[in-house]
Amino acid sequence: MADAGNNEQGLRLLGLHVSPFALRARMALSLKGLSYEYIEQDLFHKSELLLASNPVHNKVPVLIHNGKPICESLVVVEYVDEVWPGTAILPADPYGRAVARFWAAYIDGKLFPAYAGVMKAATEDERTEKVRETHAAVLKLEKAFAEISSSGNGAAPFFGGDSVGYLDLALGCSLPWFGALRAMFGVEVIDAARAPLLAAWAERFAETAVAMEVLPEPDQAVAYAKKIQAYRAASAKK
Amino acid sequence: MADAGNNEQGLRLLGLHVSPFALRARMALSLKGLSYEYIEQDLFHKSELLLASNPVHNKVPVLIHNGKPICESLVVVEYVDEVWPGTAILPADPYGRAVARFWAAYIDGKLFPAYAGVMKAATEDERTEKVRETHAAVLKLEKAFAEISSSGNGAAPFFGGDSVGYLDLALGCSLPWFGALRAMFGVEVIDAARAPLLAAWAERFAETAVAMEVLPEPDQAVAYAKKIQAYRAASAKK
Repeated sequence: MADAGNNEQGLRLLGLHVSPFALRARMALSLKGLSYEYIEQDLFHKSELLLASNPVHNKVPVLIHNGKPICESLVVVEYVDEVWPGTAILPADPYGRAVARFWAAYIDGKLFPAYAGVMKAATEDERTEKVRETHAAVLKLEKAFAEISSSGNGAAPFFGGDSVGYLDLALGCSLPWFGALRAMFGVEVIDAARAPLLAAWAERFAETAVAMEVLPEPDQAVAYAKKIQAYRAASAKK
Repeated sequence: MADAGNNEQGLRLLGLHVSPFALRARMALSLKGLSYEYIEQDLFHKSELLLASNPVHNKVPVLIHNGKPICESLVVVEYVDEVWPGTAILPADPYGRAVARFWAAYIDGKLFPAYAGVMKAATEDERTEKVRETHAAVLKLEKAFAEISSSGNGAAPFFGGDSVGYLDLALGCSLPWFGALRAMFGVEVIDAARAPLLAAWAERFAETAVAMEVLPEPDQAVAYAKKIQAYRAASAKK
């Protein structure tokens, strides 16, 4: 093997089956066609390997390559894209990359806390407010999709153009949770009436090979949400 | 000129003289030796140009290149590094880049809110807590500096090695505010007793050409902090 540093030997991923952040890393590895050891983590009882690999945040995902840990989902996705050839994940041009990084930061900074807040809300008023914030963030992303997908020749099916890329992974990893919000609270995160382009994108994304291979069914997210609720309720009683 | 897309013509930066985020962008442009039009913004009365260039966040910095806006300071720094040759800002190897991106996200996610919280604290208890969080974050960064600076041959003077790079800009942009915290509250953010490596780094960084050219004196940060306090007090009275 010409470059021992870039082979797949010993490639491991610490994940959680419903973590949108871990799902990003798994989809990136899948897009590159890489084989790796997947090690499911129990975040209620964190493993020594997780604590040693991500001592700063103790969170998944952690990609371990050549014995060295890479943490933070977007950092992992960029790393995978830079180290392995094959399907490009980030856009080729610097401006396209800047736009993709900007919106990925927006998803993590605005959309994720809003929709996670719908799950965690202690009161109905709080839930209503978090639903409002979620829909406001989705509207911004709808506009972003309109701009990005029309920046090439005609209307592209994905943020990444004709095939899925960085922003498709950054947003698509949350689809199981959008399904869980629908099931648990009747909340339609990407509503076809408000965000028709994103609603069509979500349908297309869910049918891609990488999404079908990696994303869990929404009922797994529902089950995990209930597990967290039960854990919190038990902790509160102590 | 061979590549009209990458020239400096029409390169503009919307900034604020004391914004650590805008300072990152200015230091990146300075490291590349680029000339640009600097347009100071009044964040109390946001300009049409700012609102049109960064409609999502209405924040500085915004780099305008070829008529297109690039927002979010770390995104701007990566863009500048990718578009223009010369001094490399990010590490050359993917693992080094992943480590740099991880810690830059840590600075923005943990250190910045902690030290900004010292400024904004409404009570002494809250301020004490924010000082504690600030020092905890600095200790993590001290350890990171020890690891990163010793990853090559011997102890490097900067996060970037023998010269300043991405993480040096990501952290160094806050030095004027660390000075302001010392002046206003007697808080030593990077205390030589707790974080001797970072304290020595900060002294070295402050003496670099890029820091001397771009960073304002702490008293400018103090003056701006007082302007914000006065604005808040006036708003509260309304």
